[in-house]
Amino acid sequence: MADSVGVGLLGLGVVGGGVARTLREKAETIARRVGREVELRGVLVRDPARERELPGLRVTTDPAAVLEDPSVQIVVEVMGGDQPAHQYIRRAIAAGKHVVTANKEVMAKHGPEIVAAAARRGVDVAYEASVGGGIPVIGPFKLDLLANDISQVTAIINGTTNYIITRMSQAGLDFESALREAQEAGYAEADPRNDVEGIDAAYKLAILATLAFHARVHPDDVHREGITTLEPSDFRYARELGYVVKLLAIAKVIEGGLELRVHPAFVPEHSMLANVDGVFNAVQVEGDLVGRILLYGRGAGAGPTSSAVVADVIDLAQRIEAGSVRPVVAYDGRLRPRSMADTRCRYYLRLVAADRPGVIARVAGLLGEREISLASVLQKEDIQVSEGDRYAEIVFMTHRAHEAAVQTALDEIRRLAVVARIGSVIRVED
Amino acid sequence: MADSVGVGLLGLGVVGGGVARTLREKAETIARRVGREVELRGVLVRDPARERELPGLRVTTDPAAVLEDPSVQIVVEVMGGDQPAHQYIRRAIAAGKHVVTANKEVMAKHGPEIVAAAARRGVDVAYEASVGGGIPVIGPFKLDLLANDISQVTAIINGTTNYIITRMSQAGLDFESALREAQEAGYAEADPRNDVEGIDAAYKLAILATLAFHARVHPDDVHREGITTLEPSDFRYARELGYVVKLLAIAKVIEGGLELRVHPAFVPEHSMLANVDGVFNAVQVEGDLVGRILLYGRGAGAGPTSSAVVADVIDLAQRIEAGSVRPVVAYDGRLRPRSMADTRCRYYLRLVAADRPGVIARVAGLLGEREISLASVLQKEDIQVSEGDRYAEIVFMTHRAHEAAVQTALDEIRRLAVVARIGSVIRVED
Repeated sequence: MADSVGVGLLGLGVVGGGVARTLREKAETIARRVGREVELRGVLVRDPARERELPGLRVTTDPAAVLEDPSVQIVVEVMGGDQPAHQYIRRAIAAGKHVVTANKEVMAKHGPEIVAAAARRGVDVAYEASVGGGIPVIGPFKLDLLANDISQVTAIINGTTNYIITRMSQAGLDFESALREAQEAGYAEADPRNDVEGIDAAYKLAILATLAFHARVHPDDVHREGITTLEPSDFRYARELGYVVKLLAIAKVIEGGLELRVHPAFVPEHSMLANVDGVFNAVQVEGDLVGRILLYGRGAGAGPTSSAVVADVIDLAQRIEAGSVRPVVAYDGRLRPRSMADTRCRYYLRLVAADRPGVIARVAGLLGEREISLASVLQKEDIQVSEGDRYAEIVFMTHRAHEAAVQTALDEIRRLAVVARIGSVIRVED
Repeated sequence: MADSVGVGLLGLGVVGGGVARTLREKAETIARRVGREVELRGVLVRDPARERELPGLRVTTDPAAVLEDPSVQIVVEVMGGDQPAHQYIRRAIAAGKHVVTANKEVMAKHGPEIVAAAARRGVDVAYEASVGGGIPVIGPFKLDLLANDISQVTAIINGTTNYIITRMSQAGLDFESALREAQEAGYAEADPRNDVEGIDAAYKLAILATLAFHARVHPDDVHREGITTLEPSDFRYARELGYVVKLLAIAKVIEGGLELRVHPAFVPEHSMLANVDGVFNAVQVEGDLVGRILLYGRGAGAGPTSSAVVADVIDLAQRIEAGSVRPVVAYDGRLRPRSMADTRCRYYLRLVAADRPGVIARVAGLLGEREISLASVLQKEDIQVSEGDRYAEIVFMTHRAHEAAVQTALDEIRRLAVVARIGSVIRVED
């Protein structure tokens, strides 16, 4: 067997530990698939004194000891966060190492520049683990879907929020209770902002859209709404209307531009996406040749993430053995992000209004003035009484309407004296 | 731009026409992704006089004109069937051409030998289109899932039967009517045997199992039952019990062996597989790291198949450009096909029996003697009257039992005077 391929690991948390364990426990299988042994040469850690489950690892706190080790050909970055991970990736590339990263934040914010720098240096950057854990997502875009012009990507790509939403939907919990449950189960962090406000999903959507559309998409281009304002009644109305609520990440070609948005949405109850529950993720892709496909699985965790990271390591090691680097797919820049105001959707609007005659007519009138026509109106008998006043929940389902018009109408509706508050505005994706 | 890559096409039917059209219409995109132009040099057809939608194609009836054309580097085989396709593929390899094929029969029966011959000749064989149309399936096994030990593949991989089953389930049609509908819609052939008896699914399962388990699996190793004996009442009982009927193709590691079977099965109604309807396909994979993933999409048709074929062409052309051939994953031969008699499953048994006291007790007694215990028994009031006798349908759901024991018990039950016939025996896959 030829010389072994050397791997350096940055980070030894949950994912890093999983990667180190997999490289060790599957050393024989990996060697058989690569044609050479693949060896973990050094691991950058924060605290070298910490007791490790894996004895015999060469740990260091000095990044250079990994990044500039001449016996390392592949650097695996699983630290997470923007800095110092980004800087280490750039140093690894500069030192002529191939890079495997699970870092969605770095790839979303700096991916195209990193890939270009790697191509100039003659090395490769692999990032299958950055979106959808172990689900084959990046691979299919780079290989299986290459012949397609992609028109839309619709994804459930944050396991934490999908777990919370599934519990709200199936157990009738409110957001706070479902979040607490997710935190107790280890699915949500103590500070859940990154997940519940859709920031994590926007990172992943930026990576997917960049790949799918050969466009330069930055997370700031993504319109973003989280799940914190969803209420149990939204889930009940959704079911009644034949839908399920999901936090969707959508990238879509419209009139030569790219619509990019993360927000809660109604999806038809019998669709594949509606059945993606708990911490599972799914990426649905529509291509001109392939039609609609869906890729489904666990989006996070040590096992699934290690699956993707180690697959990338094996692939790179095979290509080091073969002496070939994958060609870089150029960004053609034809598709530019569009403004959210231009989006056209159907909308679900839930209002809490005074239980008086004429409220529906007034709201419908304001919507009509903005050319927003109604598909249906639901008024339920469950009346809320507060401070002596009687309130009713009214649900409006619109036909397709312009986002800008809807937002203007909502401002006007909000100012109506008879409207106590706008409970929810959720887009409908059929 | 460097010299173009030359492609030769064998077959110009629905799929071949789609491939030729895609190579032409997307020439610019393909050239951008490969770094060179990819050119269709010659097409083997049966009838050169037939009018073609695509003018200017260089068609020939002489296989050597394509297989031995020195300007052709990639031969695309989309004729289907065993011979002469198999022979042409071998000749292309011998002439030093890379091969892309959509031929499940050839790859299922001769895949490992073909891949080995290609490796010896320093060329590659790509066959993404042979299973699941445009769904990324072969690619993920060769790349994304490489780090996993796969324990099970469960697939809906025949669109014709899934369409028929979906119509039987959702519209209450009997098999003959649903088949006729599928034929009228162009989803089933005039002679539907290959599809409805599970032959096509067994080919595809052999290909998937060979890849997933690095084992040598021949279609003859696959236990095979079709959908022709399913009756509308099976779909009604399934629903009542919380299941959906699907034709599953299953490959599973059990006690160091491989269970390989294609047959109708009950799947839980809320599972992802239960929601794969109509002509759609899905491949579900369980790996030790990745957990459960599912890959879903259209399994046939000119568009999806061209998507897979042209992706393979682009990938090969990229590697011709880079001068690298993918290493062959060796068959390690550890896992051997097991006998169907050793399978353990839960079973649904539907009997038509005389409407007399004691029938359930006698059947349960025979099952009990073979250590098959019952989970539930349903006797419905819809009595069939025939020649003056009254019959009742009785449904038994068993706990996990041995296939061999179940088959023996069924022989005994069939001989009971009170049993008119065994309506269905369907395995339950949770």
